[in-house]
Amino acid sequence: MKAVFSVALVHYPVYDKNRLLVATAVTNLDIHDIARAAKTFGADRYYIVTPVEGQQSLVGRVAEHWQSGWGATYNPKRKSALDILQITSDLESAVADMEVRTGIRPKIIVTGATGRSGSVSSATLAKRLAEEDGAYLLVFGTGWGLTEEVFDSADLVLEPILGSSDYNHLSVRSAVSIYLDRLFGRT
Amino acid sequence: MKAVFSVALVHYPVYDKNRLLVATAVTNLDIHDIARAAKTFGADRYYIVTPVEGQQSLVGRVAEHWQSGWGATYNPKRKSALDILQITSDLESAVADMEVRTGIRPKIIVTGATGRSGSVSSATLAKRLAEEDGAYLLVFGTGWGLTEEVFDSADLVLEPILGSSDYNHLSVRSAVSIYLDRLFGRT
Repeated sequence: MKAVFSVALVHYPVYDKNRLLVATAVTNLDIHDIARAAKTFGADRYYIVTPVEGQQSLVGRVAEHWQSGWGATYNPKRKSALDILQITSDLESAVADMEVRTGIRPKIIVTGATGRSGSVSSATLAKRLAEEDGAYLLVFGTGWGLTEEVFDSADLVLEPILGSSDYNHLSVRSAVSIYLDRLFGRT
Repeated sequence: MKAVFSVALVHYPVYDKNRLLVATAVTNLDIHDIARAAKTFGADRYYIVTPVEGQQSLVGRVAEHWQSGWGATYNPKRKSALDILQITSDLESAVADMEVRTGIRPKIIVTGATGRSGSVSSATLAKRLAEEDGAYLLVFGTGWGLTEEVFDSADLVLEPILGSSDYNHLSVRSAVSIYLDRLFGRT
């Protein structure tokens, strides 16, 4: 793998169940599970994107607990996963931060549970990432998914994850884990 | 896929961080995330294994809320995932239940984060599951992992999931999702 990649978990702009634009709340296990998965598969950064200041400071307090508070000695594995965590107030700030870190403007890869025309399969993208240099930001939505504007602004849309049944409602934690394994895992 | 499979999440017997035998607490997102992933990939049953009666009734109350309480109309997708949920007090009861449901004693497949000799790769097992009839129970441990006795009694041990870094500490929710995708996902 030559490409550098990061993960962004977006809490705004996303849809709620009635397709209204909302800012979702950050959940504690989204912080830990996705940090651990991102770290395991070699992500440079894990961006938690929320414009809500109270939510930003909540994430900061959780990270602080595990990084320099009591949790740091209780469970050093969590500390090391949270080292890659970064809070930004919008997606553009995550893109800009990645550009500063890598010197390249990252390509934005967007994921969703619904099929869209022009989507790329995980296998095709995995091959491309293994061969090409470059920087990539994998963007995941919370709630009922990323808005159309985010999809429209993306460089690439990944095909949805399909199981063997008609039921297709993975948690965002499961979806992130599976995409990272498909793109960067060693089988 | 011809084989029937189920998932078991074991809260006892497992190790804690000091390798002492403990019963871990059930966490709310273990119920939901794993039920949704198991349902997506076509599992027949999702067994939550705990001998602690207070924990069993807690899981029952959560399931009840989403299945016939207020949550059932708020989010029918959760209801349908929890339809496959079953609580058992030990692993043998899950095996016995699967035997009653399928008419075959299931093969026990155990997973863990550490490499063991004689382990089988996900790719090899996926091929076998696609070709063979039979019943399989995929067993996952909470806390710091399943005990040696559980590993010794298994029919098959799956190779650990490796990322692209030295860090290899996925949550059990991530690990279950990735194994299910590797074994039963359509890419």
